[in-house]
Amino acid sequence: MKAAVWHGQRDVRIENIPEPPAPGEGEVKLQVGWCGICGTDLHEYAAGPIFTQVNQPHPLSGRLAPLTPGHEFAGTVVEVGAGVTGFKVGDRVSPNPLLRCGTCAYCRQGLPHLCTQIGFMGCHSDGGFGEFVNVNVERGSRPIPVLYKLPDNVSLEAGAMVEPLAVGVHATKRGHLQDGETVVVVGAGPIGICTIQAARAAGASQIIVLETAAGRRHFAEESGATTVIDPTSTDAARAVQDLTNGLGVDCAFECVGAEPTLRAALSTLRKDGRAVVVGIFEHPAAADYFDIVFFEKTIIGTFAYRDEFDLVIEMLADGRLQPEPMVTGKIGLDDLVAGGFEELLTNKEGNVKILVAPE
Amino acid sequence: MKAAVWHGQRDVRIENIPEPPAPGEGEVKLQVGWCGICGTDLHEYAAGPIFTQVNQPHPLSGRLAPLTPGHEFAGTVVEVGAGVTGFKVGDRVSPNPLLRCGTCAYCRQGLPHLCTQIGFMGCHSDGGFGEFVNVNVERGSRPIPVLYKLPDNVSLEAGAMVEPLAVGVHATKRGHLQDGETVVVVGAGPIGICTIQAARAAGASQIIVLETAAGRRHFAEESGATTVIDPTSTDAARAVQDLTNGLGVDCAFECVGAEPTLRAALSTLRKDGRAVVVGIFEHPAAADYFDIVFFEKTIIGTFAYRDEFDLVIEMLADGRLQPEPMVTGKIGLDDLVAGGFEELLTNKEGNVKILVAPE
Repeated sequence: MKAAVWHGQRDVRIENIPEPPAPGEGEVKLQVGWCGICGTDLHEYAAGPIFTQVNQPHPLSGRLAPLTPGHEFAGTVVEVGAGVTGFKVGDRVSPNPLLRCGTCAYCRQGLPHLCTQIGFMGCHSDGGFGEFVNVNVERGSRPIPVLYKLPDNVSLEAGAMVEPLAVGVHATKRGHLQDGETVVVVGAGPIGICTIQAARAAGASQIIVLETAAGRRHFAEESGATTVIDPTSTDAARAVQDLTNGLGVDCAFECVGAEPTLRAALSTLRKDGRAVVVGIFEHPAAADYFDIVFFEKTIIGTFAYRDEFDLVIEMLADGRLQPEPMVTGKIGLDDLVAGGFEELLTNKEGNVKILVAPE
Repeated sequence: MKAAVWHGQRDVRIENIPEPPAPGEGEVKLQVGWCGICGTDLHEYAAGPIFTQVNQPHPLSGRLAPLTPGHEFAGTVVEVGAGVTGFKVGDRVSPNPLLRCGTCAYCRQGLPHLCTQIGFMGCHSDGGFGEFVNVNVERGSRPIPVLYKLPDNVSLEAGAMVEPLAVGVHATKRGHLQDGETVVVVGAGPIGICTIQAARAAGASQIIVLETAAGRRHFAEESGATTVIDPTSTDAARAVQDLTNGLGVDCAFECVGAEPTLRAALSTLRKDGRAVVVGIFEHPAAADYFDIVFFEKTIIGTFAYRDEFDLVIEMLADGRLQPEPMVTGKIGLDDLVAGGFEELLTNKEGNVKILVAPE
């Protein structure tokens, strides 16, 4: 079959590799419909290995690079392994790509995304940038579901966006975002846009987006932003105060991963406000803890998702989430490097999410 | 009457000043029994004005320096103003020293400590380092109680420690500390000790204290610490892991106000753990947000107290809080500068709380 294979930094090849074997016990084989390109895929391509398993096999998958990347995907069941109930050939599904052990303290406490042996399909086992992939129906020694059916009115394209949308929905849950609250989202990249969508679905009364790139400000508006501010030309903290009776917002989401955007998020908060940090930081970042203490602000780290896949699929089915404006490109697998990775690296302004069809 | 008066940096004088007038409507006059020296008093003496009102009168009190400092005090009612119910001459009481407007968004939301016009007795009106002081029974245009009676078995010395203990109890509430959880407290100064006491009262199963000063490690042990670590000679993060099944603690309290102690607090947390920041920071502080995001840590700022005075008094009455080990000195008002401020500045190791008797 045709698949992308990560061999090293700037060395992702489209190859013919053996199709996965017949699915084992508890597994199904998927024909991948669409797989989205995530910032993680980009980083592994341009600067990896960061997460990609190298040197020794991952303890849960037994695999290491070369591996097929991609963890945002949906597909159709083409073969069902022994012991699988609830899934049949032809089912359209989206898998939760997190590997977890099922037995560590965090798995037992219902925090599988904090598993001490955590891994991702695409980084620690083969992922979705190939024609076929075997996936577990449940995962962990005390199994919990990791494969989710898509209803008829949720397309495979939308199914490929369940994963990043789950990141946004999980972020709003980590931030205890409540109906009617005011929100700032700093950064309208893919995860920022997913967070805007999730905040709109959660009933935010205002969603004020801070974004320097004009193209991305446009996508933010289409996704539910009520006000979009260019922080390079406007005093964002002042503008947010003016929009919120002089107080600041209840909840700000940092979706970039850098000190200036962290400080921007904190500066837009009301007293007693929450800053949810979604961005991945490469360096330590300084903040004003005098302000955090005196105004009782809270900083909340959020990572991936806990178990929000079924909720996101329900929200896609009933229209609370509408990811269509996020899709800025659809390409074939042969074009993954040039039309996918390189396009995203060189044209950030014009892109949010590029979907790849492996067949 | 005799009172201390703050005139400027390193210029606190013991003077004879007029006794406060007869208490106005809603006020009582107190004869101060004991008033504790707080870190804030020290900072105002050594490096002020930081909070002390200068240049123009405070909008709520109409006062500015020179002022009598001191906000941790208890005393006896000697005169009752018009309209006061529930208090009579001879009552032993402890006042909540926070000034609040009662009408701003924060006051209306039950967050008077975040009032947009917030002030403190001792910094923005006369405080407890004098023989007499008038205090309100309720405060704010939508009044809430600010004066609390002490039961017979709570001494005036303990009453003078209600305020710092309320800071510790509020910190554990901000941290959502629950019975049986594991705790780290970084820094065993007065507020650290109050936080240790509050964590013990909240049912923490372990209270691991990080403190560099040997003298203070001793006070921590007397106040409820289950393990005391000198972080200069021990790898604190490793030691805490060893004490917590390799996980880290549920909740860490930063009670110093500096970057290294903030980092230490964060490093001792389990995934999904909470760091409560109690310390007052003079400079921005950097933290590792990669760690905060991937391990879903939360940083919670906490300031003063919301309305915990009655709870603290109840906890003193039933013995859940035992502040006696904190009292390392009792002096008269004439000795405030030499035996109080200078003693605390030069002998941190040997002191936690010095109480001052104004008469």
